[in-house]
Amino acid sequence: MAPDNRTALCPGTFDPITYGHLDVIARASAMYDTVIVAVVNVPWRKGKTLFTAEERIAFVGNATRELGNIKVMPFASLLVDFAREQGAMAIVKGLRAISDFEYELEMNQLNRRQAPDVESVYLMASPKYSFLSSSGVKELATFGGNITDLVPDEVASALKERLGR
Amino acid sequence: MAPDNRTALCPGTFDPITYGHLDVIARASAMYDTVIVAVVNVPWRKGKTLFTAEERIAFVGNATRELGNIKVMPFASLLVDFAREQGAMAIVKGLRAISDFEYELEMNQLNRRQAPDVESVYLMASPKYSFLSSSGVKELATFGGNITDLVPDEVASALKERLGR
Amino acid sequence: MAPDNRTALCPGTFDPITYGHLDVIARASAMYDTVIVAVVNVPWRKGKTLFTAEERIAFVGNATRELGNIKVMPFASLLVDFAREQGAMAIVKGLRAISDFEYELEMNQLNRRQAPDVESVYLMASPKYSFLSSSGVKELATFGGNITDLVPDEVASALKERLGR
Amino acid sequence: MAPDNRTALCPGTFDPITYGHLDVIARASAMYDTVIVAVVNVPWRKGKTLFTAEERIAFVGNATRELGNIKVMPFASLLVDFAREQGAMAIVKGLRAISDFEYELEMNQLNRRQAPDVESVYLMASPKYSFLSSSGVKELATFGGNITDLVPDEVASALKERLGR
Amino acid sequence: MAPDNRTALCPGTFDPITYGHLDVIARASAMYDTVIVAVVNVPWRKGKTLFTAEERIAFVGNATRELGNIKVMPFASLLVDFAREQGAMAIVKGLRAISDFEYELEMNQLNRRQAPDVESVYLMASPKYSFLSSSGVKELATFGGNITDLVPDEVASALKERLGR
Amino acid sequence: MAPDNRTALCPGTFDPITYGHLDVIARASAMYDTVIVAVVNVPWRKGKTLFTAEERIAFVGNATRELGNIKVMPFASLLVDFAREQGAMAIVKGLRAISDFEYELEMNQLNRRQAPDVESVYLMASPKYSFLSSSGVKELATFGGNITDLVPDEVASALKERLGR
Repeated sequence: MAPDNRTALCPGTFDPITYGHLDVIARASAMYDTVIVAVVNVPWRKGKTLFTAEERIAFVGNATRELGNIKVMPFASLLVDFAREQGAMAIVKGLRAISDFEYELEMNQLNRRQAPDVESVYLMASPKYSFLSSSGVKELATFGGNITDLVPDEVASALKERLGR
Repeated sequence: MAPDNRTALCPGTFDPITYGHLDVIARASAMYDTVIVAVVNVPWRKGKTLFTAEERIAFVGNATRELGNIKVMPFASLLVDFAREQGAMAIVKGLRAISDFEYELEMNQLNRRQAPDVESVYLMASPKYSFLSSSGVKELATFGGNITDLVPDEVASALKERLGR
Repeated sequence: MAPDNRTALCPGTFDPITYGHLDVIARASAMYDTVIVAVVNVPWRKGKTLFTAEERIAFVGNATRELGNIKVMPFASLLVDFAREQGAMAIVKGLRAISDFEYELEMNQLNRRQAPDVESVYLMASPKYSFLSSSGVKELATFGGNITDLVPDEVASALKERLGR
Repeated sequence: MAPDNRTALCPGTFDPITYGHLDVIARASAMYDTVIVAVVNVPWRKGKTLFTAEERIAFVGNATRELGNIKVMPFASLLVDFAREQGAMAIVKGLRAISDFEYELEMNQLNRRQAPDVESVYLMASPKYSFLSSSGVKELATFGGNITDLVPDEVASALKERLGR
Repeated sequence: MAPDNRTALCPGTFDPITYGHLDVIARASAMYDTVIVAVVNVPWRKGKTLFTAEERIAFVGNATRELGNIKVMPFASLLVDFAREQGAMAIVKGLRAISDFEYELEMNQLNRRQAPDVESVYLMASPKYSFLSSSGVKELATFGGNITDLVPDEVASALKERLGR
Repeated sequence: MAPDNRTALCPGTFDPITYGHLDVIARASAMYDTVIVAVVNVPWRKGKTLFTAEERIAFVGNATRELGNIKVMPFASLLVDFAREQGAMAIVKGLRAISDFEYELEMNQLNRRQAPDVESVYLMASPKYSFLSSSGVKELATFGGNITDLVPDEVASALKERLGR
């Protein structure tokens, strides 16, 4: 029997958030009462992301405001521990390609060993976003490519400012 | 916002049901109010399965009785149409290997085109069942292999009777 | 140095042609002077396709008329032999997924052994057609699914007539 | 500690044997005292192979004569049961591509469940044979392609006689 | 209809060029009037390659001299922008393995979004070079392995000088 | 004919050894007279591993003591050269996933080119360890996850001391 509490977690680094991430978050939003977008914020990794945790969280918050049932939170612990603390019944992730699948299969098995009660569910990426990744967008922005339909406007501006030449 | 109605569909041929299928069904049962196990029963494919639709449905029914929130139903239409008729919010499937992933990615994209409102969610197969398939079990049974931990007892007996020599 | 003769071959069974095939043919048409769409027509496989070779050729011909530099021809010999007979410098194929890639890699190596002078070149399928196959369309049509944007109108009508119930 | 008995089994349908199979058998022959080439001969599959079990066994026997430590035997039981009956310590198979790998991973897990004492070991196919399969050779022979360097002469002659037109 | 201008681009870092790269370049050279080998030369990546852009360009130039229709050029912009500037009708790349395929599929979709008029075409790596990469060659050279048949003599000497101990 | 000398090599960085490594080593131990666990110890990579070569060798030695026929040795040369120096007839490696397979296929082909007399044989990872890697264990330990059944007790303690917070 399913729990009354229907919270799901969408974890990621979101450096920065793309329309591919937003597609998965919106689809999760339609399936659960609350979706927590959990943004990786590990202190000793500071400086290895292009945007700070604060910036990344703000971009996600602005981009998901209209969905209504989204909370954005930083986390710095084991994902399944954070999911349990937040009372989430599921972790939701998108799968774009074989390499995603293999990585997620391995993580799934590690995670279920740690916390058998936290299920991970996967959504297939939409074809129009199957090629899209944060690193690809940063590469494009570095060389002045067109990123308009790949990330929200606010993010596109920030990328141009930070990476453009 | 998620619907009040939380029914999920687990589709398959189940010829016959294995402990791998049951693992996915039980995990779905813990996430949704009702899980409909939808058993393919296409008239013009009659004779191409080892067990009849009636037998396959009975095996699934007996094996899932204890879960409490399972309905077993035959279907002979487009999966997404059947999901809509039944008011299911999601189709749940297990992924064992790359070949599963590629097939499901293709089906997902065809299905979402037909019915954008029916989401498919995927669970990663448990490692101990990642090698398990109905056809593998039938092959084993044909050659007198040990299938005790792979299928419910009732199914094991039926396989030995039907295939054993 | 490249040859003056710039003919390419797009081979397939085309049972029936889809917009995915047409996307590849149109892209080949923009790169070569002439594109021969080579339709498999092996006598001893007669009856194993849904449409006859004549029907499949007609569908391809009608769907490619506007491109201007397309010839549609049946073939019943080794693909590389047919390519040489027609003076084609290249065989052009689309790649949708890993399974396509592995099959084409094997065929490529067999073909280059037979005819080192006939090069095969591959185009990546467009995301919007990456899920599309003739067999998927036939499956959809069998169950009354919507195939309007997947195949030309003439093909959609023929599929409904042949497979619909 | 390793057993004194160092027999390995190379199983297959060998319909017909190719130089790819022979490469794996020769490499196994260099690693074990005795290599049993186990040729599938299941009565109810009779007529589904191009060559009879007798023909397939003869082709293997003639092609492996010079290796000195090869026995060719038909088998119609579960592979691991046959390996145990023959006192084999290992089953040896070649891996050419991802699809081989996934299939063998599944079989490995089924087999180790049946017979934990029979280990399967895998060799990577040589690049020059990575594209080679019995079915590919039969396809080539059907259309009059050149199969000279792909199978032993005796097999090439038999293929031409059986399939050529 | 194909353009009169038949220039193709073979892009890469070429740190250093291998016989695998040269195989692809030679096959492109046979299909197009002019092939531009475009060598990545991004200022802020300076020091991350073993050889300088000047060295890498010289190695490519010397190794491709006999082909007759090759130009070697550095580039530091978006690949598709550079292709357009040079009037190239196609980007040509080799595919060795699944991981190449997945990466190129993603890049292809990003590139076609930026520049729908620049087509990318892919050639399958020759079996004898399917295992060959610049990084593998550098690893081998570091440990004194034999790299004679993997890179041109001039490159082998430079690798031994730079990496040998 | 197989050699009298039946030594196999299990190479790796083992930073640190996991139960997945030990499963492969134990299975190799049952197939060969002697198994040398070869621990990468390249001077210029010092500081890039969590544990020193001495620590890593000690962990492997302690964990394999009961097997009886294991030698643990550092190596800093080309793997196939080291195998030849030690008179090993085979290199034994485990395969967990597609990404392992592709990497090992490439290395296999490079290695056989260097030393055709040193065969590499592959074992399929046990399902219960298919998700297990040294880097996954270090990630878990960093965040205080449960690593008890993943590595020997001695290693678990060292990981907690080195990485725990």
